Amino acid sequence: MNFPPAELREQFIAIRGNKTFEMTVVAIIILSAMLIGATTYDISPFWISVLGVFDIAVTLFFLAEVLIRIAAEEKLRNFFKSGWNVFDFVIVTASLIPIDESQMVLLARLLRIFRVLRLISIIPELRILMNALVKAIPRIGYVVLLMFIIFYVYAAFGSFFFEQINPVLWGDITIAMLTLFRVATFEDWTDVMYETMEVYPFSWIFYLSFIVLTAFVFLNMMIGVVIDVMQKEHEKFDREHGEGEAGEVHWIREHTEIMEQRMERMEGLLKKIADKR
Amino acid sequence: MNFPPAELREQFIAIRGNKTFEMTVVAIIILSAMLIGATTYDISPFWISVLGVFDIAVTLFFLAEVLIRIAAEEKLRNFFKSGWNVFDFVIVTASLIPIDESQMVLLARLLRIFRVLRLISIIPELRILMNALVKAIPRIGYVVLLMFIIFYVYAAFGSFFFEQINPVLWGDITIAMLTLFRVATFEDWTDVMYETMEVYPFSWIFYLSFIVLTAFVFLNMMIGVVIDVMQKEHEKFDREHGEGEAGEVHWIREHTEIMEQRMERMEGLLKKIADKR
Amino acid sequence: MNFPPAELREQFIAIRGNKTFEMTVVAIIILSAMLIGATTYDISPFWISVLGVFDIAVTLFFLAEVLIRIAAEEKLRNFFKSGWNVFDFVIVTASLIPIDESQMVLLARLLRIFRVLRLISIIPELRILMNALVKAIPRIGYVVLLMFIIFYVYAAFGSFFFEQINPVLWGDITIAMLTLFRVATFEDWTDVMYETMEVYPFSWIFYLSFIVLTAFVFLNMMIGVVIDVMQKEHEKFDREHGEGEAGEVHWIREHTEIMEQRMERMEGLLKKIADKR
Amino acid sequence: MNFPPAELREQFIAIRGNKTFEMTVVAIIILSAMLIGATTYDISPFWISVLGVFDIAVTLFFLAEVLIRIAAEEKLRNFFKSGWNVFDFVIVTASLIPIDESQMVLLARLLRIFRVLRLISIIPELRILMNALVKAIPRIGYVVLLMFIIFYVYAAFGSFFFEQINPVLWGDITIAMLTLFRVATFEDWTDVMYETMEVYPFSWIFYLSFIVLTAFVFLNMMIGVVIDVMQKEHEKFDREHGEGEAGEVHWIREHTEIMEQRMERMEGLLKKIADKR
Repeated sequence: MNFPPAELREQFIAIRGNKTFEMTVVAIIILSAMLIGATTYDISPFWISVLGVFDIAVTLFFLAEVLIRIAAEEKLRNFFKSGWNVFDFVIVTASLIPIDESQMVLLARLLRIFRVLRLISIIPELRILMNALVKAIPRIGYVVLLMFIIFYVYAAFGSFFFEQINPVLWGDITIAMLTLFRVATFEDWTDVMYETMEVYPFSWIFYLSFIVLTAFVFLNMMIGVVIDVMQKEHEKFDREHGEGEAGEVHWIREHTEIMEQRMERMEGLLKKIADKR
Repeated sequence: MNFPPAELREQFIAIRGNKTFEMTVVAIIILSAMLIGATTYDISPFWISVLGVFDIAVTLFFLAEVLIRIAAEEKLRNFFKSGWNVFDFVIVTASLIPIDESQMVLLARLLRIFRVLRLISIIPELRILMNALVKAIPRIGYVVLLMFIIFYVYAAFGSFFFEQINPVLWGDITIAMLTLFRVATFEDWTDVMYETMEVYPFSWIFYLSFIVLTAFVFLNMMIGVVIDVMQKEHEKFDREHGEGEAGEVHWIREHTEIMEQRMERMEGLLKKIADKR
Repeated sequence: MNFPPAELREQFIAIRGNKTFEMTVVAIIILSAMLIGATTYDISPFWISVLGVFDIAVTLFFLAEVLIRIAAEEKLRNFFKSGWNVFDFVIVTASLIPIDESQMVLLARLLRIFRVLRLISIIPELRILMNALVKAIPRIGYVVLLMFIIFYVYAAFGSFFFEQINPVLWGDITIAMLTLFRVATFEDWTDVMYETMEVYPFSWIFYLSFIVLTAFVFLNMMIGVVIDVMQKEHEKFDREHGEGEAGEVHWIREHTEIMEQRMERMEGLLKKIADKR
Repeated sequence: MNFPPAELREQFIAIRGNKTFEMTVVAIIILSAMLIGATTYDISPFWISVLGVFDIAVTLFFLAEVLIRIAAEEKLRNFFKSGWNVFDFVIVTASLIPIDESQMVLLARLLRIFRVLRLISIIPELRILMNALVKAIPRIGYVVLLMFIIFYVYAAFGSFFFEQINPVLWGDITIAMLTLFRVATFEDWTDVMYETMEVYPFSWIFYLSFIVLTAFVFLNMMIGVVIDVMQKEHEKFDREHGEGEAGEVHWIREHTEIMEQRMERMEGLLKKIADKR
C-alpha cells in the first residue's frame, strides 16, 4: 500500500478531526442500524430494493471513511495498533466480499449487525465506558473461575443423581450447567426442584445451597468490584482537581512539606543564634 | 393579565407561605387521589354524582390555589420559571376545559390521575428527592445508550435468525427488543430459549451472553452512580457542617494555613534577631 | 401492685443478670418455637397431649421470667419504658387468658407464634440489629411515599384502561396495585402485558416505564441508605478507636491543635527576645 | 509413620515448591474434572474402560502428590494444621477404599466430584478468595439468624392458616419454609398467593410484608457486609503502600510527629536564649 504525500495526508488528518465529518459518520452508522431494523419488518419488494441501494451506499461510505483514517496515519502499522481500528477495518472490509451462496447470507447479515457496534468505537464517551468495563474483567476473573467450579461440581452432582429423573434437564454435564444457570436466575426453579424431590426428598438442600452460594458469590463479586473501581477513580479525580476530601488531604500534604523545610531553616537560625552567644 | 396592587399581593404571599394553607392543599390533593381511587370501584349512581360534585369542588380549589400563587409573584414570568409551577398550571387549567365527547373522557381521566403527581411538587422533601433522581439521569445517559446498542444488536440478531421459529417473539426488531427485555428480567426466559435451541442447539450462548452482559452493565450503572452521588453529598454535608472525617480534614486544612502564616512571621523575627547581631 | 422489699429486689436483679438464667430463657424460647413447629406435623393424640403439657410449662416459665424482671425494677414504670419489655409483657400475659371458643383458637396460635419473636428481644445482638433496621426506616420514609405515589398513579391508569380487559387483575385500584407489585417482582409480568397489548398495542410503554422507574427508585433507596448508614458507623467507630484513616485524621487534628499552642508560645518568646534588644 | 531422612526431605520440599510440579497438579485436577464430565455423556464401553484406566492413574498421581507434601513436612502434625491439607488428604485417601457394592458407587462418584474442589485448595488466588468469603460468614451470622426467625414465624403462621388450602405447599413447617423461600425468590409466588386469597382475601398482606421484609434485610446484609469488608481492605492496602488518600493521611501523620519533635527542640533553644539574657 503506497502512502499519500505529506500535503495530502495533512488534508486527511484535517478531515478526520473535523467535527462535521465525525457527526456524519455517527449519523451514517445510525442510518445503517435503522436499515437493519427495517429489514426485519415485512416490507414490499420495492422498499427492499431501495434498502439494498442504501446498503451499498453505506458500505461505500464506510470504506471511504476507513481509507481516510488509514491515509491520515504516517505509518500503516500505527492504524492497526488500536484494537478499535482493527475492529472497524475487519467489519468494513468483510462487507466488501461478494456473497452469492445462500448459506453465506447469514454471515452477511451478521456483518451488517456488527456495524452497529461501530457506534461504540466512534463515540468517545462510549469507548471510555467500554474500556472501563473491559478493564474490570481481569479483576473478577478468579471469582468467575470460582463460580465456574461451583457450577461444575453441582452440575456433575446433578447429572449423576438426577439424570434418570429428567434427562432433558440433567442429561449430561453441559445440559446440567444450563439447568443450574436457570435455577440461579430463579426461572421456574421450583418445577425443577419438585421433580427431583419426588425421588430424593432431601434434594431441596442441593438447590437451596446452590442458590445461596451463587447469589452470595455473585453479589460479592459485582458490588465489590464496582465499589472498588468507583472509589479509586473518585479519589484520583479529586486529588488531581484539588476537590473534595482527597483534594484537601493532598493540599495539606504538600503544605506540610513546605512547613517542614521552613522549620528546618528556622532551627538552623536558632542554633546559630544560640551558638553565637 | 393585570396584577394586583402591592398591598393585595403581600396578602397573597402571606397566604401562600401559610402552613395551614399548605397542609390544606396537601389534604385536598390526597382527597382528589382518593376520589380517583373510589371511581375504580363499582359504586351506586348516587355516589357517582356525589363524587362528581367533589371533583368540581377540587378543580375549583386547585384553580384558586394556582391563582393565589400566581398573584403572589411580582411578575407573571417568575411563576413560570419553575418547571414544577408550569406542571401545576397545565394540570389545573387543562381540567377546566369542558369535555363532552365520549372519546375525550379518557383524556379527562388521565388529567385527574396526573393531579396526584402534584403531591410531589407540593411536598418539599419529595421535590428534593425527585430533583436528585432527575439530576442522576444525564450521568447514566451514555450507559443507557450502551445498553440500547446491546439490545439493538441482539434484537437484530434474534430477529434475523429466530423469526421463522416464533414470529410472535421475534417478528421484527421492536418485538425482539421487547422479548429481550423479558429475558433480561428472567421472565420465562428458558421457554424462549428452549424453543430456539430445537433449531439452533447452540443458541443458549446468545441468551447467556446477553443476560451476563446486561446484568453486568446494569448493575455497574446503578450501583456506580448511586455510590458516587451518595459519597459526593456525604462529603459536602460533612465539610459544610464540620462533621466526620471530611469535617476534620477541612479543619486541619484551615489551621495549617494559619500555622504557615504564623511560621512566616516567626521566621521573619528570627532573621531580624540573627541579622541584628 | 406492691413491690418487694429492697433485699428481695436485689436477689431478683441478681437472677435477671445471671448468664445461666439468660441462657435458660433463650433455650425455653427455642423449645417453644420447636413446639409450635411440631404442632404443624400430623402427630398422634398422645403427643398432642404431651405438647399441651409442655405448652403450659412454657407459659408458666415465661410468666415467672417476666415477673422476675418486673420485680427487679425499682418502679413499675421503668419496666414499661422499653418497647421490648412492653412487647414481652403483652405476649406473655395474653397467653394466660383462657380461650374456650373455637374461633379464638386462631388467636391463641398467633400468640404462640409471636413468642418466637421474643428471641429478638432477648439476644442483645439481634436487638441491636433490629434497632438499626428500625432506625433506617424514617430515612427511607419519603422514598417509600414517592414509590407509593408512582404505584398509585400507575394503578389508577391501569384500572381505568385495562379493567374491561381483565377485571381480576385491574378490577379496582387496590387489585391494580397488587398486580403492579407482581409486575415489579417480574412474576409472570409478560402474561399481564401481552393480554393488554392485544387491545392497546402500545401498552408495553406502560409496563416498561413502570419497571424501569420502580427498579431505579428502589435500588437508589436501598443501596443509598445502606451505604450512608454503613459509612457513618464505620467512620464513627474508627474515630473512637483511633483506627484506620478516620482515626489518623483525628490524631492529626488533635496534634495540630497542640502544635498551634506551642507555636503561639514560641512566637511570644521570639517577640520578647526581639523587643529586649 | 516413619519420616524420611533430612536429605530426602529437602528433595521433597524442592519438588513441592517446583512451579512445573504445581502446574502438573492443576492440569491433572482439570483432567480429572473433565473425566467426571465425560462420564455424564452416553459413551461406548471402550471409552468407559479408557476413562477407568485414566481414573486409576489420576488417583495414584493424587496419592503420590499428597505423600510428597506430607514427606516434605518436618512433623506429620504440621501437615494437618491447615484445613486445606486435611480436605486434600480425606478426598485422596477415601478414593483408595475399594468399593464393590452397588450402593457405594454413588459415594465413589461423590468423591470424584469433590476432587474438582481441590482446584480451590491448589490455586492460591482462589484460596484467598475462599478465605475472604469464609471470613465474612461470622459477620452475617446474626443477620442470617434474624432472617431464619422471620422465615420461621411466617412459616408457622402459613402452616396454621393455609394447611387446609394446600397441604402440598403448607403441610408442615419445613414445607412452609421451603414455600416461603420460593416466594422470596419471586418464583410463581402469585400462584401461591391467589390460592390463599380465595379463602383469606387479605392474605396478600402476609406475602407483601414477607417480601418487603426479607428483601430489605437481605439487601442490607449483603451490601452492608461487602462494602464494609471492601473499605477496610482498601484502606489497609493504601496505608501500607502509601497510595491514595489513606496513604497521604498516613504520611501527614508521620511527618506531624517529626515536626512536633523538631518544635520541641526549637522551643527548648528559644527558652535557653531568652533565659541567658
